[in-house]
Amino acid sequence: MPNALPNPKLDFWFDPASTYSYLSAMRIDGVAAEAGVDVTWRPFLLGPIFKAQGMETSPFSLFPIKGNYMWRDMQRLCADLDLPFAVPQSAGAEGFPRNSLLAARASVVALKQPWGRDFVRGVYTAEFGDWRDIADPAVIADVVKLAGGDAEAVLAEAIADGTKAELRANTEEASSLGIFGAPTFVVGEELFWGNDRLERAVAWAGGTAA
Amino acid sequence: MPNALPNPKLDFWFDPASTYSYLSAMRIDGVAAEAGVDVTWRPFLLGPIFKAQGMETSPFSLFPIKGNYMWRDMQRLCADLDLPFAVPQSAGAEGFPRNSLLAARASVVALKQPWGRDFVRGVYTAEFGDWRDIADPAVIADVVKLAGGDAEAVLAEAIADGTKAELRANTEEASSLGIFGAPTFVVGEELFWGNDRLERAVAWAGGTAA
Repeated sequence: MPNALPNPKLDFWFDPASTYSYLSAMRIDGVAAEAGVDVTWRPFLLGPIFKAQGMETSPFSLFPIKGNYMWRDMQRLCADLDLPFAVPQSAGAEGFPRNSLLAARASVVALKQPWGRDFVRGVYTAEFGDWRDIADPAVIADVVKLAGGDAEAVLAEAIADGTKAELRANTEEASSLGIFGAPTFVVGEELFWGNDRLERAVAWAGGTAA
Repeated sequence: MPNALPNPKLDFWFDPASTYSYLSAMRIDGVAAEAGVDVTWRPFLLGPIFKAQGMETSPFSLFPIKGNYMWRDMQRLCADLDLPFAVPQSAGAEGFPRNSLLAARASVVALKQPWGRDFVRGVYTAEFGDWRDIADPAVIADVVKLAGGDAEAVLAEAIADGTKAELRANTEEASSLGIFGAPTFVVGEELFWGNDRLERAVAWAGGTAA
């Protein structure tokens, strides 16, 4: 049985380059609010975690059969959820995964502001809804502005030493928690991997059955 | 929108060594019957498919962090579904994946009989509910008997040339369909991978929304 925590809460670990994290970013606040669960958004980078397992890039790129399936699966899921999805199917998703370093650093900065989650959702929508390159500072600037922030300030703060260190610490913490993919939801010592586990993780946090 | 097929049907591809296939084997006939969808059970071997992608064994063994998570995930899912699950957690699942060649061949034979699906479900229960070695002919014999079949006849037929060829052909067909893991549900040209996609696959076959 899940433990009923006194203050139901959950950590949402995401990498801006992760396709399935997009789905969770768009859904999690609604699902969690309904169950009275507090969510903390935790940006990190999958790259170093893949590397530590001997993978130089995303498994979806290393195993193209799985990658092909993932694009079709995402297409169906986005249709089901009424989410924009404009990844070029025919190109076999050239340009995936995006370099998410800048977007992850900017997320660290933005999530300290009230519009931070809008920014992260905006990053995913630009990336997978419009197939824009989130490694481009101009794209990040557009998304900050759309979310209601100061683009110049965020871009400057994103490459400040403190921000870089914070993202590195996040990634190290993710690794030490046993995280190997994204999204991952962490409730106490329990890991739930994948957008498919969002509801179960929230129920676990809330101490109720799925 | 999914195509509404005149005779809603779905192929259920499984490897007897696959943990998540266990969950689907126990659930699929109920879920499909409720939606009026016919299911064909298709045994195959993941080993040759992993090898073709450069993996000498299951990704859960190649990437232990992912493997550790999988065992905990299975434990939680089996608890949720009230299914027996007796894999030794402390041993880090030594003896996984089981060699499923004999069990897959026996499945080819058994599925031509009315008790065939009971046999397959029995294999999974012996394997993951009781942690028995399904590579052992004595274990397969026990399961055949429990399902109501003739153990000696099934074991003899399982290693007949025709059966071997049939399983090989299944695996080649799975590969040509783009299958890379199990369970996989196939509806027309659509692939749905993983126990988490069972309901969506059945809904797709039935031409209804998830």
